[in-house]
Amino acid sequence: MRVYLAKNLREANQSNALDNRKILGEKRILLINIIGSPGSGKTTLLEHTLKIISKGYRAAVIEADLYTSEDSGRLEPWCETVLQINTEGGCHLEAGYIGHLLTAEAPYLLDMDIIFIENIGNLICPAEFDLGEDLRVTLLTVTEGNDKPRKYPLAYQDSQATLITKTDLLPYCSFDLNEALNDLSMINSAIKVFPLSVQTGNGIGDWIQWLKAHVEAKKNYAGN
Amino acid sequence: MRVYLAKNLREANQSNALDNRKILGEKRILLINIIGSPGSGKTTLLEHTLKIISKGYRAAVIEADLYTSEDSGRLEPWCETVLQINTEGGCHLEAGYIGHLLTAEAPYLLDMDIIFIENIGNLICPAEFDLGEDLRVTLLTVTEGNDKPRKYPLAYQDSQATLITKTDLLPYCSFDLNEALNDLSMINSAIKVFPLSVQTGNGIGDWIQWLKAHVEAKKNYAGN
Repeated sequence: MRVYLAKNLREANQSNALDNRKILGEKRILLINIIGSPGSGKTTLLEHTLKIISKGYRAAVIEADLYTSEDSGRLEPWCETVLQINTEGGCHLEAGYIGHLLTAEAPYLLDMDIIFIENIGNLICPAEFDLGEDLRVTLLTVTEGNDKPRKYPLAYQDSQATLITKTDLLPYCSFDLNEALNDLSMINSAIKVFPLSVQTGNGIGDWIQWLKAHVEAKKNYAGN
Repeated sequence: MRVYLAKNLREANQSNALDNRKILGEKRILLINIIGSPGSGKTTLLEHTLKIISKGYRAAVIEADLYTSEDSGRLEPWCETVLQINTEGGCHLEAGYIGHLLTAEAPYLLDMDIIFIENIGNLICPAEFDLGEDLRVTLLTVTEGNDKPRKYPLAYQDSQATLITKTDLLPYCSFDLNEALNDLSMINSAIKVFPLSVQTGNGIGDWIQWLKAHVEAKKNYAGN
């Protein structure tokens, strides 16, 4: 019998996250961890983001799902390098999986400018696992209701940005945008919020501009 | 140091679930475990269900959230007995929590005809924990996309019913109802599916009728 303590596994994750951060820091590659509920629009966001970002930057996606690879299939037309992780029921990604890709399975990831991770569709468990990302981006969908940041605070608390998705559906939902913005600023006063809709295109430009600024800042970072 | 093995904890959950099932079986109380993503409409469904069910039956709700009790507040106008469990970050309920309420904290639950559990907003982890329920009901929201049953199969596989919620938003979403029905029947050929909308009221009657039939069947169950 081998005994694993959850506490030690959690510490191991943090150590692996630091390793990932160091490797990607040396190569000046931006890592983005995208978190959101099932159906919050993570893959659709990536389709629209990659269409634009892939023109100017070498971009890769690490796509996580419980069992299927259909989201990867959706992204391949917009990105040459799409890697699928199947967690076989696992509810979140861990830093060690990403580290294994970077150092063993897929070292060509180190030739990229930007790597997106689409985490498992879950607002709770992924929030507890640092993957070594530069930016954590958590989605909030207008159809979910504006109470989600205060009901699932951890994901929003540790994020650099929240994307309020599917804003084209605002007229049909009882989503109070001001209340959402207020709650988000209480949980995390530094969080950047982008309301957007891939249907109308509203807000996409601001999100892409923010992302590009971060890729450039990382490329030009003088420290180590 | 005390060491807890996940395997043993999982077995303990199953044993606790059987205890709950036995207690509720003797009292002929129907227990419903409601699972769904954040914002899939679990609380709204319960508001509309309790409005009707509370007229003919003694109903209680066990409401689970990470930290807040605001969903309980929404249900209290429609139900005298609403109990809040805060998991403090925990991503699912376990049978032992329910057993503790039934046998120690809230024995008046044993005077009910029907007890609803609103599980934590998460399509993954709650699916792995039997609470001793008679019926597991998993929500699928049209705004999430019709691919969710095949991407998160466990919750749907072990459910007696799926409620397809927010069908009033179908004209604004690319949700393929036939594909959803087909996927659900592949995962679980016995599953009962209720497309419904609390906005229009469509489908609510069928769902309530099904629920009442199950309360009656349990009340009149001759075995033990």
